Amino acid sequence: MSESDLLARIIPMFGESPFAGAGVVVPPGDDAAVIEAPGSVVVTTDSMVRGRDWRDDWSSGHDVGIKVVAQNVADVAAMGAVPTGLLVSVAADPETPLDWVIDLTAGIAQGAEDAECPVVGGDLSSAPAGVVVVAVTAFGDLQGRPPVLRSGARVGDVVAVAGSLGWSGAGLALYEADARPTTLSLPPHEHTERDKNIVVLQWYHRSPRPPWESGPVAALAGATSMIDISDGLVRDGGRIATSSEVELALDEEVLRGYLYAFEGALTPGEGWRQILSGGEEHSLLATFPSGSVPDDPEAPWTVIGEVVEAGPDGPRLTVGGVVPSVTGWDHFAG
Amino acid sequence: MSESDLLARIIPMFGESPFAGAGVVVPPGDDAAVIEAPGSVVVTTDSMVRGRDWRDDWSSGHDVGIKVVAQNVADVAAMGAVPTGLLVSVAADPETPLDWVIDLTAGIAQGAEDAECPVVGGDLSSAPAGVVVVAVTAFGDLQGRPPVLRSGARVGDVVAVAGSLGWSGAGLALYEADARPTTLSLPPHEHTERDKNIVVLQWYHRSPRPPWESGPVAALAGATSMIDISDGLVRDGGRIATSSEVELALDEEVLRGYLYAFEGALTPGEGWRQILSGGEEHSLLATFPSGSVPDDPEAPWTVIGEVVEAGPDGPRLTVGGVVPSVTGWDHFAG
Repeated sequence: MSESDLLARIIPMFGESPFAGAGVVVPPGDDAAVIEAPGSVVVTTDSMVRGRDWRDDWSSGHDVGIKVVAQNVADVAAMGAVPTGLLVSVAADPETPLDWVIDLTAGIAQGAEDAECPVVGGDLSSAPAGVVVVAVTAFGDLQGRPPVLRSGARVGDVVAVAGSLGWSGAGLALYEADARPTTLSLPPHEHTERDKNIVVLQWYHRSPRPPWESGPVAALAGATSMIDISDGLVRDGGRIATSSEVELALDEEVLRGYLYAFEGALTPGEGWRQILSGGEEHSLLATFPSGSVPDDPEAPWTVIGEVVEAGPDGPRLTVGGVVPSVTGWDHFAG
Repeated sequence: MSESDLLARIIPMFGESPFAGAGVVVPPGDDAAVIEAPGSVVVTTDSMVRGRDWRDDWSSGHDVGIKVVAQNVADVAAMGAVPTGLLVSVAADPETPLDWVIDLTAGIAQGAEDAECPVVGGDLSSAPAGVVVVAVTAFGDLQGRPPVLRSGARVGDVVAVAGSLGWSGAGLALYEADARPTTLSLPPHEHTERDKNIVVLQWYHRSPRPPWESGPVAALAGATSMIDISDGLVRDGGRIATSSEVELALDEEVLRGYLYAFEGALTPGEGWRQILSGGEEHSLLATFPSGSVPDDPEAPWTVIGEVVEAGPDGPRLTVGGVVPSVTGWDHFAG
């Protein structure tokens, strides 16, 4: 199948999205696309590599499509912006099964539709045997607001999180341990909490659905800093602390409440490790002036700590007053 | 070396560009970058894969960096826009030599500086052994003009080209034939035309410098359609013909004038084939109302034909009244 034939098959899949027209001045098919951008545009890129960022025995092409869109849209949201467009670059072994490519495309189209953000263009290249790399660029609109940076947290602010903590890392750990649900083929009252949690955590690892709506809501409410949790709460929270030259003092008891999601599936110790350092969660971490945390049931935020003055050891993140010993995920060191 | 360490080494290389500040609202280092975009933004992506789009025995990391920027900037130019920003996504085997990555970065920074277009962000992922994929996204500003599409050519327009024809394909053919200059170590008056041409054509194949300034100049002059020649003159000109529902009637004698570049290095037959179908040239092909071809010595355009009514066979490209039998390069079929 030639590039033209494959593109002719793939491009209409994006056009079927009900959002394909919104804000798109020139759609895919010319040398470049043109999207509306009133004053400025938020831009970010993130990619996934077969065998590194997903395993074919765990994730379908559809899962990969959902995830690569989700992690880009989360970066846009973490600036306080709404997503306005996506570009998709796929480098794939020409022997990649057509069904897999179609499935990937369907996942990307689904992710784009969920985020109300059209795919406006892309690029297809051939790659060596076995290789598939999917790189996505996302664009966003700040809707006239200033971007919410990592550097704006102020002493006296509260720290809040939107979305789950540690689910993606827990799902990965459960895959690696070959954990499988055994009761879900039984009548519903016999389903164990363990098995339901395994399914949910593995699903979130394969195809996360971060709370990207909470980003613009936070910006509107006056968030002073925000970050997407891609390398773990401790590491990404530490980035806000460093950029803002403050200490993020997180509440251990509140954070331990997040352990409920792992009941029966992970030991409390392993669950706690995932809450603090699990990567690829793409939940949002932000700081707000006290009393300004948004109260929107469609885009909820949970207070998990406060911003205090950096002590003699400099900017840092603490949990229950102590610097946690765990660190986060390094995508390159692997 | 960790991702953080490598990024700490790489990011300052872009910051040294004198253009790093122009139009950049939020520079690299947060969840996303923010660039100025007064009303709309042109977006495009194109990637290069080691072993497919370059060979390490021919191209350095610096060459790859120059080329991947050039092909993206050419797409922006082909809409009539000026480039305003680049995002770079690299998926690389962690064993890739650090020197190579630094060299690639220097090439990207050089390309960005040549195009007066800052690198505003990026992403680094690990890839399987031997794999390197460099995906770039480019942004552009139409400066208030409408985009120049492929679909606007009108009967009575003239067809013009900015830049070279067939050089990249010729350079590749010369590499594949293992052609080497033998006289260039002699005194200059003994250098053969063949050897100088081999060096120029192979250089252009490795690190092309397309005439991107000619894109906005064409738009300002009223170009009715424009495309970047990435798959060959015949194939890309055919795209304008199809989109515009016209015939592009090219002048064979004028086109044969481009054979001068291959003198002694390629046979006239092979040179002619490269003029018509050589890919990855990234020169610009456009149509203009008769009398409107821009006359800017800094961004020259050469008339190579005219737009005539499509005949009974429908939209097509002809050379000397005949449909050429060559076709262009298919990146995916390889």
